[in-house]
Amino acid sequence: MAAGPPYGPVTEAFVDALRLAVGAEHVRTDDEARATYGADALKKGHPADVVVWPADTAEVAAVLRLCTAHRVPVVPRGAGTGYTGGAVPSFGGVVLALQRLDRILEIDERNLLAVAECHVVTGDLQRAVEAVGLFYPPDPASLPTSTIGGNVAECAGGPRAFKYGVTKRYILGLEAVLPSGEIIHTGGKSVKNVVGYDLTQLLVGSEGTLAVITRVTVRLVPLPPTQVTLRATFTTIRAAVDAVTNLIRARVVPSALELIDGDSLEAVATNLGTRALAPEGTGALLLLEVDGLPETVAEEGRRVEQACREAGATEVLVAHDQATREELWRVRRALSLSLRVLAPMKVNHDVVVPKGRVPELFDLIDRLRAASPGVRIPCFGHVGDGNIHVNMMLDPADPVALEAARVAERALFEGIVALEGSISGEHGIGFSKLPFVPLELSRIEIDLQRRIKAAFDPLNILNPGKMFPE
Amino acid sequence: MAAGPPYGPVTEAFVDALRLAVGAEHVRTDDEARATYGADALKKGHPADVVVWPADTAEVAAVLRLCTAHRVPVVPRGAGTGYTGGAVPSFGGVVLALQRLDRILEIDERNLLAVAECHVVTGDLQRAVEAVGLFYPPDPASLPTSTIGGNVAECAGGPRAFKYGVTKRYILGLEAVLPSGEIIHTGGKSVKNVVGYDLTQLLVGSEGTLAVITRVTVRLVPLPPTQVTLRATFTTIRAAVDAVTNLIRARVVPSALELIDGDSLEAVATNLGTRALAPEGTGALLLLEVDGLPETVAEEGRRVEQACREAGATEVLVAHDQATREELWRVRRALSLSLRVLAPMKVNHDVVVPKGRVPELFDLIDRLRAASPGVRIPCFGHVGDGNIHVNMMLDPADPVALEAARVAERALFEGIVALEGSISGEHGIGFSKLPFVPLELSRIEIDLQRRIKAAFDPLNILNPGKMFPE
Repeated sequence: MAAGPPYGPVTEAFVDALRLAVGAEHVRTDDEARATYGADALKKGHPADVVVWPADTAEVAAVLRLCTAHRVPVVPRGAGTGYTGGAVPSFGGVVLALQRLDRILEIDERNLLAVAECHVVTGDLQRAVEAVGLFYPPDPASLPTSTIGGNVAECAGGPRAFKYGVTKRYILGLEAVLPSGEIIHTGGKSVKNVVGYDLTQLLVGSEGTLAVITRVTVRLVPLPPTQVTLRATFTTIRAAVDAVTNLIRARVVPSALELIDGDSLEAVATNLGTRALAPEGTGALLLLEVDGLPETVAEEGRRVEQACREAGATEVLVAHDQATREELWRVRRALSLSLRVLAPMKVNHDVVVPKGRVPELFDLIDRLRAASPGVRIPCFGHVGDGNIHVNMMLDPADPVALEAARVAERALFEGIVALEGSISGEHGIGFSKLPFVPLELSRIEIDLQRRIKAAFDPLNILNPGKMFPE
Repeated sequence: MAAGPPYGPVTEAFVDALRLAVGAEHVRTDDEARATYGADALKKGHPADVVVWPADTAEVAAVLRLCTAHRVPVVPRGAGTGYTGGAVPSFGGVVLALQRLDRILEIDERNLLAVAECHVVTGDLQRAVEAVGLFYPPDPASLPTSTIGGNVAECAGGPRAFKYGVTKRYILGLEAVLPSGEIIHTGGKSVKNVVGYDLTQLLVGSEGTLAVITRVTVRLVPLPPTQVTLRATFTTIRAAVDAVTNLIRARVVPSALELIDGDSLEAVATNLGTRALAPEGTGALLLLEVDGLPETVAEEGRRVEQACREAGATEVLVAHDQATREELWRVRRALSLSLRVLAPMKVNHDVVVPKGRVPELFDLIDRLRAASPGVRIPCFGHVGDGNIHVNMMLDPADPVALEAARVAERALFEGIVALEGSISGEHGIGFSKLPFVPLELSRIEIDLQRRIKAAFDPLNILNPGKMFPE
């Protein structure tokens, strides 16, 4: 890791002060805790010096005051499901583990909102609001384990974003603690509010670098009563994207619009030993879902099917009941495990381009495939948003492949920016994408963002070494 | 006006430099220009010293560099339709009139977006995208004259916000110029983008205090093919709000949900000399609209009608064709002119509460009515968002009424904050609401916002004296 600013040491006296603040049983300095809280789903990181579990917002504030007084870096952490190292230290210090802030405080049917502490698991929040006929749409793949606070910090996406939008569109208000220990409340319980700058939206996606989010007010919508799922196969990526263009022309906005490429399908077929999920000769598979009132869903389902057939679909399957719908989605769920048959190491890129340029993105990926010996590049993702997960699969023991993947990574990001895209659609920057940020943001823009960071965190103790290169 | 920081004087040399930057014919210092550009729809303000009309982003940057070099305050201005003084000087200096940046640059049907210069009139942009079957939903009442850049700067709302959301939800990216003259690009052409802090959303609603917005990329949705409009009358506000609660329970999200109170209806009846638009004994009138596919609209129209009847509506009218729909909307359009029959002066408050608390808001307004001699308080607004326009009508020659309105204003804002609401839903703070900001934001929150302002504008020359009290 790069050297940081002159941070204070984690002394025994500092750790004792933490114990006093949150209770000795909620502070750990053993190697196991330090290692566990020193990595996330990226499986890289730097051990924490100390892990603390505050009970509530007041204790979060107390820990932050201590970190400010001692100039010790502090990293807020949700469930640690991130792919870019956002929740792990770059310089040691304190990991602020938020597990104990895990209550749903309010589900307000009348005002279509819910209030939750930051460590409520997003899937649990969804089930709780669905029980009263309401709906929290954002659905990152991690939702059975990731938390609403973490989702806010990263601005999580997911399949439903094309119709419903990403996390930011559902956040009405936040309670957060500044590095100074001062508590702020942003937004509120109303969709409309123009008093002051929109700090709510500034904190969404700020990766825990500006303030520690402790409480979230989410906007809800009525739960759509009906869904239809469709699976369409195509010989080429271009034909699948033509289907997407057709259905946009037909004024349909599906609630999911997932693309899986031929390389990914081959991995699924090999892994599961069946062609049922991925018919031979399929260059691209679309999973589509429409939701809403039964009348709408029936009509939109017809339009989606027609859009796919007009684009040359080789097969279109339609599922109305829950069991058949789940069978169609099985290929998507089988992807992550199946990719492992290709190679032991996965380097996961989360790029986005304007959706009309997805064929150009796949042309670029084909060029990278040709130029990268020892690297397989299966791709899948949220094609309605132009958000494609580009997975570089390789054997870490093969130095030729490692170097090829390194070269391909930079070429991918340079190509993405040339296609008017972004190097991260939903996984964030953390520390793993830091070197590529200057491809997308100018020096002027990075300096401006640093000044905003300093407005919140003048000592640069809150999750330092993330989002912007030093 | 309060004294500002030590700004530089507007010297003849400075004005000559402006002339060199944008052409002498695009700089005016005559009294007429200074007065015209020294007020907006609030009809108060401070004259500019000089008004300049740059041709493009590069000239905007040149003007800002000069203002920085000479420490002269500079106020960006769109169409000047704001109600809170956001686009008028507090300390003189330069008004940056953006009229010449008025081109629609791109309508991209495939990627569902449009790119426009800041001074494109919002209504013109809507018509242009509707011509190709697309839809830009935000619809502030000013849309025939207000501009997309001004709408972004104020985060404009409007009737459709309940279903579609306010301006911020449709802004994908911005080009903007910092007070230093540096040009930044935020966001882009994709809905998903988590590289860096979300400066796009920070600039939306920042009232021209952080940067000058020169170019806007808006997200579009498919144009809904069908609309149905309903007008329902009730004896009380509470019954009308019950209807809103009922329809939310019935899982309907109308594209418009407007409430007009009895006092406003009386003004319309008096002004137009007819009871047709406002039947006698009506305490509240709802205008509702549903849009979408014909199948959905028919079903949702039935649910809306039922929700109104179950809440005790005295009459429900339903309009399917354009002419009848416009007739139902006529009462809403007649409001502004009709209120003038009540008194010559209108003080316009734009408050918002969680929608379930709208009856409590009207209880508060009833108390203010009883306590405010010489002041009439007709109210109407976007009840789905809990966003109500509270109009205090009085004779400015009546000192008792003036004092009563002043007292009622503060009581209103204090009551709003106690109801978990906000003192402005869509009109902004400008300078007219400045004294009330500390009712809603804490000292810590205001200080934080000031530090963010300084990150963009260290000399405090860009639209100073707005949004936050000194």
